Amino acid sequence: MEVVMVPGKGPTFPEPLKEVEDLLKLRQKVDVSEELGYVFQAITLTRHSLEGKVPLIGFSGAPWTLMSYMIEGGGSNTMAKAKRWLYRHPEASHRLLQLLQDVIVEYLVGQVAAGAQALQLFESHAGHLGPEQFREFALPSIRAIAKRVKNKLQAEALPLVPMIVFAKDAHYALEELAQAGYEVIGLDWTIQPQAARERTGHRVTLQGNLDPCALYAPKEKIGELVKRMLEGFGTQRYIANLGHGLYPDMSPEHVGAFVEAVHTHSRHLRTPD
Amino acid sequence: MEVVMVPGKGPTFPEPLKEVEDLLKLRQKVDVSEELGYVFQAITLTRHSLEGKVPLIGFSGAPWTLMSYMIEGGGSNTMAKAKRWLYRHPEASHRLLQLLQDVIVEYLVGQVAAGAQALQLFESHAGHLGPEQFREFALPSIRAIAKRVKNKLQAEALPLVPMIVFAKDAHYALEELAQAGYEVIGLDWTIQPQAARERTGHRVTLQGNLDPCALYAPKEKIGELVKRMLEGFGTQRYIANLGHGLYPDMSPEHVGAFVEAVHTHSRHLRTPD
Repeated sequence: MEVVMVPGKGPTFPEPLKEVEDLLKLRQKVDVSEELGYVFQAITLTRHSLEGKVPLIGFSGAPWTLMSYMIEGGGSNTMAKAKRWLYRHPEASHRLLQLLQDVIVEYLVGQVAAGAQALQLFESHAGHLGPEQFREFALPSIRAIAKRVKNKLQAEALPLVPMIVFAKDAHYALEELAQAGYEVIGLDWTIQPQAARERTGHRVTLQGNLDPCALYAPKEKIGELVKRMLEGFGTQRYIANLGHGLYPDMSPEHVGAFVEAVHTHSRHLRTPD
Repeated sequence: MEVVMVPGKGPTFPEPLKEVEDLLKLRQKVDVSEELGYVFQAITLTRHSLEGKVPLIGFSGAPWTLMSYMIEGGGSNTMAKAKRWLYRHPEASHRLLQLLQDVIVEYLVGQVAAGAQALQLFESHAGHLGPEQFREFALPSIRAIAKRVKNKLQAEALPLVPMIVFAKDAHYALEELAQAGYEVIGLDWTIQPQAARERTGHRVTLQGNLDPCALYAPKEKIGELVKRMLEGFGTQRYIANLGHGLYPDMSPEHVGAFVEAVHTHSRHLRTPD
C-alpha cells in the first residue's frame, strides 16, 4: 500500500482498505530488507555517528495501530472504520494482523542487526479498544512479537536487546502488558506512578509518563512536575520520559528544562543529604 | 462567542480564544433564559409530546470540555492549545471555568423548570487530562455543579431530578466521581463492569457502557455482548446504555437490536428459570 507523510496531518494512505476483499491486493510475503533496507542503513549510519554517546532505539507500530491506519487512511477520532472491521470481520482482521506481525518481526530484528540497542513497540491506538477487543486483537500480537523477535535475535546470534511496549491509554491492560514478554512498559500520563508500580510488579521497568503538554508550563513548574513524577516512580527500574510525543510548537528550551530537571532531581533522590 | 454547527465536523468556534486577554471580550454575566430560552421551549414541547411514555433527559457539557472547544475552536486530537492554557495560565483558566460553571448551573436548572426529568453533565474531554489536572481543573466544577443545581432546584421548589455525570476516559477518577454528588456515573467502554462496581461502591447507579462500534457487529453478536455487559453490571442500580454516542453511519436496525437485547436479557436475569 502507498503511504505518504502529509505535513501537519501525519501518515496518510491515499487508498485505504475498504472491503475485506482488498486484503487480497496486499502482498502476502514482503521482503523487508529489500523494502525497508534504507531504514537499516540509516540506523547503521546513526549508530556510527553517535559514537557510543547515547543508545539508539529502534521501533515499530504494533499490528492493531498499523491496521487502523491502513483502514482509516490516516488519523481518526473514533477509529470507527477500523473497529467496524474488528466487529464485522474478525477473521479477516486476524489475517491482516498476522501479516503485519510477520513484517514487524523482520523489521525489528533487522533494526537490531543494523545497530539498534533497544526496541520499542507502539500500540498508539490501544485506547480505542476496550479490554475485550484489546485481549482479542492487540495483546496476542504484542506477546507474539516479543517472543518471535527474541527467538530470532538468538537464532541469528544478534544481541538480545531490551524491548519496550507502549500501549497508549490501555490502562485496563497494565497487568497483562507487564507479563507480555517486554522488559519495559511505557506509560501515558493518565496513569499514576504508584498505581502503575503496584499493578505491574517490580520485575518490569516503567517508562514515562509526564504529560507532553506540561512542556508548555514555565520552567519552574516543569521542575516541580518532574520531581513529583520521579518520587512516584522511584529511581530503580525506571526510565524518565514523557507520556507521549512532542508537539511541533513546543520549545526546545522547555524540553531542555525537562531533561535537566530529571538529572537534578534523580541525583538528589539517589543521594539525599 | 459565536458557535456554528459544521456538518461532518461538529461544533466550531470561528474565533476561538487565543490569548488570556480574550477573556475580557466574554460577557461576564449571561442572561441564560434570554439566550437559551429556545432550548427551554423545545424541552417543554418535547415533554408534552412524549405524554409520559419515556423520560426526558436534559444535559450540558461540563466546564473543561466547553473551555477546550472555546480555545481549540473545534475538535482536536490532543487538546494541546487548551491544555497549554491550563499549564501556562492556571488563574485565567479557573476564571473561565467559573464563568462556564455559572452559566451551566442556570442552564441545567432552566431545563428542569422546562420539563427535563433527569440531567446529564458531559465531561467529554476528561481523558486528555491526567489525574492531577482533572482534580484541579475539572472535578471542582463537576462537584460544584451538582451541589448548586440541587440547591437551586430546592430553592425554586422544582423537582430534585437525578443527575448523571459522564467523564469520558477518566478511568483514573472513578472513585472521586462516585462521591461528586451525582446519582449516576456514566462509563465508557474501556471500564470493566465488575471493576467499576468495586471502585464506585453500591450507593451510586452505573450507566453504560457498550462500545458504540459494537453496533457494527451482526445482531447475534450484539446480543452476546449485551448479555455479558448486563451480567457484569447486574440489574440493580444500573442503566443499560452505550459507552458513548452513535456515529452517523450506524444502522437504526442494529440500535434496535441493542435495545431488544437489553430487554430480553435483563428480563431473563431478573427471573431466571
